Amino acid sequence: MSETSTFAPRATTEQVEEGRLFAPKFDGEGLITCVVTDAWSAQVLMVAHMNPEALAKTIMSGEAWFYSRSRQKLWKKGESSGHTQRVVEMRVDCDQDAVWIRVEQEGPGACHTGRRSCFYRAVPLGKAGAVSLEFRDGERTFDPGAVYGKTK
Amino acid sequence: MSETSTFAPRATTEQVEEGRLFAPKFDGEGLITCVVTDAWSAQVLMVAHMNPEALAKTIMSGEAWFYSRSRQKLWKKGESSGHTQRVVEMRVDCDQDAVWIRVEQEGPGACHTGRRSCFYRAVPLGKAGAVSLEFRDGERTFDPGAVYGKTK
Repeated sequence: MSETSTFAPRATTEQVEEGRLFAPKFDGEGLITCVVTDAWSAQVLMVAHMNPEALAKTIMSGEAWFYSRSRQKLWKKGESSGHTQRVVEMRVDCDQDAVWIRVEQEGPGACHTGRRSCFYRAVPLGKAGAVSLEFRDGERTFDPGAVYGKTK
Repeated sequence: MSETSTFAPRATTEQVEEGRLFAPKFDGEGLITCVVTDAWSAQVLMVAHMNPEALAKTIMSGEAWFYSRSRQKLWKKGESSGHTQRVVEMRVDCDQDAVWIRVEQEGPGACHTGRRSCFYRAVPLGKAGAVSLEFRDGERTFDPGAVYGKTK
């Protein structure tokens, strides 16, 4: 499947917001933001980015593919760790510049630090001055050294 | 509260990922991605962006502030519609380049198109060729013309 056959051009606001054409908006770097939530717990697991190829591969395969800005390469979630993500549902937002996937997370976690979710720290609200983060659900569910050790 | 007193400088990966210092990473445009979920339904309501001022105001006030890329201005969610968002919890991810807020959504919806969530269309998976979006929870919960009419 080529990306050109998958994605429609963006014409009017009415088409983008109320239509059935999928016309994702990629940013200046050619990427779209993807929010990943756990299909069962509804927790946000991670936020990542997709280029057109990653988005097309995710749609076609039903497994999560992303684009790494730091490594500048396409990657399949779980290719190193085995912690793949099966997409239960993909949604797109009103202006089609973000997608949301609900996934079944394979294995003990989504975060490269060894946690279930990347969002394991809370930012306290309503306090002036320097912020001290609070760990929440911060227990490791796997040993990242053991899981990623061979490839790092 | 100045932003300089709120945010710490980014030093090592260890500090950013495992520390208690809040050292958010703003992108080339000076923005950080913010995922907004409904504190009760856990649905993703919207994805927006914050500049340092919006992030600091959100932390201090406990109400959601964002930065509009299209209008190039700081805005308080609900300033036109009255549909404000009270932040129940803010979290930051492992590399501190995204924040997630769980909010109590005031009023009937978060989306400027008149829906509860901006993610009212699904992208079908596993089909080759052009994508036809499917409306999900796409019923309007308010009339955007009536709510925004005076200010647009």
